[in-house]
Amino acid sequence: MTTRIVELRRGILKKNDELAAGLRSRFLDAGVLVLNLVSSPGTGKTAFLEFTLRELRAKGAKVAALVGDLETDNDARRLAASGAPVRQINTHGICHLDAEMIDKHLAGWEGVALSGLEFLFIENVGNLVCPSSYDLGEKIRVALLSVTEGEDKPLKYPTLFNSADAAVITKIDIAEPCGFDRELALKNINEIRPGIRIFETSAKTGAGMPEWLGYLAEARARRS
Amino acid sequence: MTTRIVELRRGILKKNDELAAGLRSRFLDAGVLVLNLVSSPGTGKTAFLEFTLRELRAKGAKVAALVGDLETDNDARRLAASGAPVRQINTHGICHLDAEMIDKHLAGWEGVALSGLEFLFIENVGNLVCPSSYDLGEKIRVALLSVTEGEDKPLKYPTLFNSADAAVITKIDIAEPCGFDRELALKNINEIRPGIRIFETSAKTGAGMPEWLGYLAEARARRS
Repeated sequence: MTTRIVELRRGILKKNDELAAGLRSRFLDAGVLVLNLVSSPGTGKTAFLEFTLRELRAKGAKVAALVGDLETDNDARRLAASGAPVRQINTHGICHLDAEMIDKHLAGWEGVALSGLEFLFIENVGNLVCPSSYDLGEKIRVALLSVTEGEDKPLKYPTLFNSADAAVITKIDIAEPCGFDRELALKNINEIRPGIRIFETSAKTGAGMPEWLGYLAEARARRS
Repeated sequence: MTTRIVELRRGILKKNDELAAGLRSRFLDAGVLVLNLVSSPGTGKTAFLEFTLRELRAKGAKVAALVGDLETDNDARRLAASGAPVRQINTHGICHLDAEMIDKHLAGWEGVALSGLEFLFIENVGNLVCPSSYDLGEKIRVALLSVTEGEDKPLKYPTLFNSADAAVITKIDIAEPCGFDRELALKNINEIRPGIRIFETSAKTGAGMPEWLGYLAEARARRS
């Protein structure tokens, strides 16, 4: 039984990798920078992304977002308040997004063409495990971690942090009441992924967001 | 492909259900009350459980815990500080515990016999999705949610909250800086699982813990 599962799993991942490679080359051709945001449920991905979309739009950037959840379109409605085009993906019981879901939801997205975008954000389903194994064709995978979650998350979920291109610490405005140990968190992230760019942010106060937005601008400049 | 996966998945869940039924009858025969704690990573399951183990031991109860994580034995070491026997289960990439893992780790657990226990706590891998589908033979499934996570989690992860016997809100000591909307959270939990017992707790201040410990005592009394 176990062997069959492993083989089937490899087959699924291989198929996903092929689809993701196709997406990656489409994103490159279209000139759109694609980011995949991964974290635990409740880390504050949506608040962080809402802030990011609003700021980028204020600078005149062309942005859009796909957002994954098992159920509800709460997040799409929240993000749409930024004015950016947002499309909800409901996975109905699946604990991660995969390349096929991205492909399907890009097709027939009214009023949105990849070639008209500078940034496409994909907010994954809240989960620190399975999204790590599914490439979505993104250029940048972002692992988010809030000050409320415990500093040892990178050690407990090494695959995500090891496969990430950037790490974002959220909710630093409540670091003190949470007793957040900043040095330990930074040490643990660096132990799993030495030298990764780390942003310490608050979507409530805006702390750390200028550095994050600067990183996005650099990443776009580097892309071409 | 999809059909084969669904069939295989059903097969796995069926096998798990059978193993779990066997565990459940062993737990009943041994007279041990078994609880399965499920939440997102970072909700504070370990702190909540550490408090619970310490208090129960102080009252002279015979308690033990199994704790699941992908990697590290950090949580087992933290929990062992309570003085209770604790055994770590490392799942190495699997995002939930299953009945087979419980069975294996009960066997050969030095110094611990089911018949010598009043309470066995199982701390699941931090994940709001997959643990919902895997029965571990527990009597009581507890869904935990922290004030930092967003009040709409029950709506977004209905399977967990719908299959839970009790809900625990953690970290209420930081409800205010987090802007936690208590009424909304209670409304959403009740929408998914009407009438479920809800405990509002803090492992830091001890708030809500007397009610939780009272519930455990009642559940044991009801068991026999």
